[in-house]
Amino acid sequence: MSTVNQAFTVKEQAMKAQKASKLLAILSTEEKNAALNTIADRLEQEYAIILTANEVDLDAGRKQNFDDAFMDRLALTKERIFEFAQGLRDVANLEDPTGIVQSDWELENGIQVEQVTVPLGVIGMIYEARPNVTVDATGLALKSGNAVVLKGGSSAIASNKAIVDIMRTALEDTRIPVEAVQFIDSTDREATKQLFTMKQHIDVLIPRGGESLINTVVENATVPVLETGVGNCHLYIDKEANVDQAINIFINAKTDRPAVCNAVETLIVHKEWLDANQDTLVKAMLEHGIHAHADEYAHSLIPGADEATEEDWANEYLSRDVAVKTVEDVLEAIEHIEIYGTKHSEAIITENDKTANTFLKLIDAAALYHNASTRFTDGGAMGFGAEIGISTQKLHARGPMGLPALTTIKYIMKGTGQTR
Amino acid sequence: MSTVNQAFTVKEQAMKAQKASKLLAILSTEEKNAALNTIADRLEQEYAIILTANEVDLDAGRKQNFDDAFMDRLALTKERIFEFAQGLRDVANLEDPTGIVQSDWELENGIQVEQVTVPLGVIGMIYEARPNVTVDATGLALKSGNAVVLKGGSSAIASNKAIVDIMRTALEDTRIPVEAVQFIDSTDREATKQLFTMKQHIDVLIPRGGESLINTVVENATVPVLETGVGNCHLYIDKEANVDQAINIFINAKTDRPAVCNAVETLIVHKEWLDANQDTLVKAMLEHGIHAHADEYAHSLIPGADEATEEDWANEYLSRDVAVKTVEDVLEAIEHIEIYGTKHSEAIITENDKTANTFLKLIDAAALYHNASTRFTDGGAMGFGAEIGISTQKLHARGPMGLPALTTIKYIMKGTGQTR
Repeated sequence: MSTVNQAFTVKEQAMKAQKASKLLAILSTEEKNAALNTIADRLEQEYAIILTANEVDLDAGRKQNFDDAFMDRLALTKERIFEFAQGLRDVANLEDPTGIVQSDWELENGIQVEQVTVPLGVIGMIYEARPNVTVDATGLALKSGNAVVLKGGSSAIASNKAIVDIMRTALEDTRIPVEAVQFIDSTDREATKQLFTMKQHIDVLIPRGGESLINTVVENATVPVLETGVGNCHLYIDKEANVDQAINIFINAKTDRPAVCNAVETLIVHKEWLDANQDTLVKAMLEHGIHAHADEYAHSLIPGADEATEEDWANEYLSRDVAVKTVEDVLEAIEHIEIYGTKHSEAIITENDKTANTFLKLIDAAALYHNASTRFTDGGAMGFGAEIGISTQKLHARGPMGLPALTTIKYIMKGTGQTR
Repeated sequence: MSTVNQAFTVKEQAMKAQKASKLLAILSTEEKNAALNTIADRLEQEYAIILTANEVDLDAGRKQNFDDAFMDRLALTKERIFEFAQGLRDVANLEDPTGIVQSDWELENGIQVEQVTVPLGVIGMIYEARPNVTVDATGLALKSGNAVVLKGGSSAIASNKAIVDIMRTALEDTRIPVEAVQFIDSTDREATKQLFTMKQHIDVLIPRGGESLINTVVENATVPVLETGVGNCHLYIDKEANVDQAINIFINAKTDRPAVCNAVETLIVHKEWLDANQDTLVKAMLEHGIHAHADEYAHSLIPGADEATEEDWANEYLSRDVAVKTVEDVLEAIEHIEIYGTKHSEAIITENDKTANTFLKLIDAAALYHNASTRFTDGGAMGFGAEIGISTQKLHARGPMGLPALTTIKYIMKGTGQTR
């Protein structure tokens, strides 16, 4: 039994989602939470079905010789599926972001104005190989009263389809309409492109994945996009940096999870600090397998370093490689970040608050750190409970996007016959 | 003497704006306000220069036989220029929307988080014939710490150029960099198109004008767009509507300013109410020169009405024409609005609060009215002080956009060596 029906066109699916979104928008918080908990239970009960489907994807992946990191993101276990379910229960426990009166006032003519949060409507989620996004995005969308149209990567299509099938079947026993969750069961790129311009039926597109996926969506979409993405993050070690803090934070930001967007890609270091702490830094880099691509000054001080090219400054390595740039002062560090940064997360290590404030004030980025690791730019770590992605744009939402990013507002204006 | 230099390419101008935006972003509120007041004074002192330039545009307009409404929007007087100046002083008096700590909290690990409002950066303003937008948009952009790249309509190019010239010359005596205001001195459409994709240097595009302009921007831009625009607004007169209120509000919403986006374009009326109040409605329509395009039921009751076609339901007349649709109940009215509405402003007239709440809750639009005219969807009328446009999209800003719509946020994270 499959509730995912391939017989419908993408447009028909988007229209079904839109229709369902109107029913979903007026459900109570309790009704939405109950539905999320029902889905969570069902995913746990049916985990074996998901694992069987996942094997199909893994087999196909092995035949295509995908690399280990890719296969690791694709592979599911019973434990991971139970984590997905727990994630849904955690989202059920978060505050409902809709129906909140953000402000209210009375016009001089007596009209009562309320600015109230409401769901966006239909969210188009376009993502790559991680099947967890299928569950996470659905949970966040439904909790915030939105329908969701899911278009996952082709390498995870069997796993995603099994997951969606279980979620939709579970919805039959809840107040949320089954059609509020749509899955584009196609590996055809044209199917994805149709989503890009369906402004009448889809309210926002959220691409999650590599730079190429995100750029394709941004360049082709007429539907508004919440851009997530690339983090070419910098750590600046000032001449007045505490040595232990600087080393610890650098190692953490570079090596804790090198493949994520909040990992540091370029170390900017004050020449005086480098001169004084060369040995400590080099030892730490060696111990943690970090390979440097260094400018001329640093190159002579870091054994085994490559010479940095222009490409290194812009590169998001997503590995244990790091570009190393030396500077004379904080302004030179800021200038470098303004040229090569992607406005994601930027950190300064210094004991001098004035220097820190210059950095925090002048740099334009989603998150700016003083004496802490860039790794905290994350919905979970920042206390948002869950995140649908990390926005690297400035409109609507910036940085980690929790439930409020999936809402908009409407003005309710109550009068007694007022005219203008 | 002209400070508007045609020798630069659009890209060079955008880069100059971006560079200036970084200096502008760190100015104090007082420095920005002083600059706005200086510009205001200078516009008043030099009003005759603007009127001379405006004559050039008016001459060209007459040769091209533009209609009266168009010429009226284009024409300037000493009084209008003094109003522009006063508008700038009013914006100077508004609260600075930047530097506001929207929330702050401490992570479990001790990191202090602040969510602070900051300017967007560079605003690209693309607009049609009204020279007042040149002043209004500049005032709102500068007050909120943003640079602005202005691309006005070719029919107002001489007026706009004269205004920008005076504003830029005035900025020389202030702390705001002259280059924070850029004017694309070209009637070449290719120049406009270059703005659409300049993501590296422009943070947001705001199109203001007709549907065709807005669609061109939305369809071609990779820079995020704040869409303003079309209002196919509905007024629903319920069977339990107060007759005087219903008539007054209908006449106001239709005829106060028929050419604006918050004017009503379709009257939806409960059949029972129409049966009972046919004479009163028809008399009011006649008195105010309103011409109806009515469905079959209403057609027989409104003398002189045309028969409505499918096009009428979707038409933004911007005149004293109105489509008239009759319904059996509020749900039928809602269904009609969901199909043909543009999510701008929708009103219900009823003495029944339950019926009203169904309408207010179910309809997805920027502004929903109970017993008041749709004409209040306006930054000034709603108490926002000024507006850069009325957003008909759901992301970032919805409805009238005041100064806060021109800001984004950044997270300032202060630690003591925290790693993850």
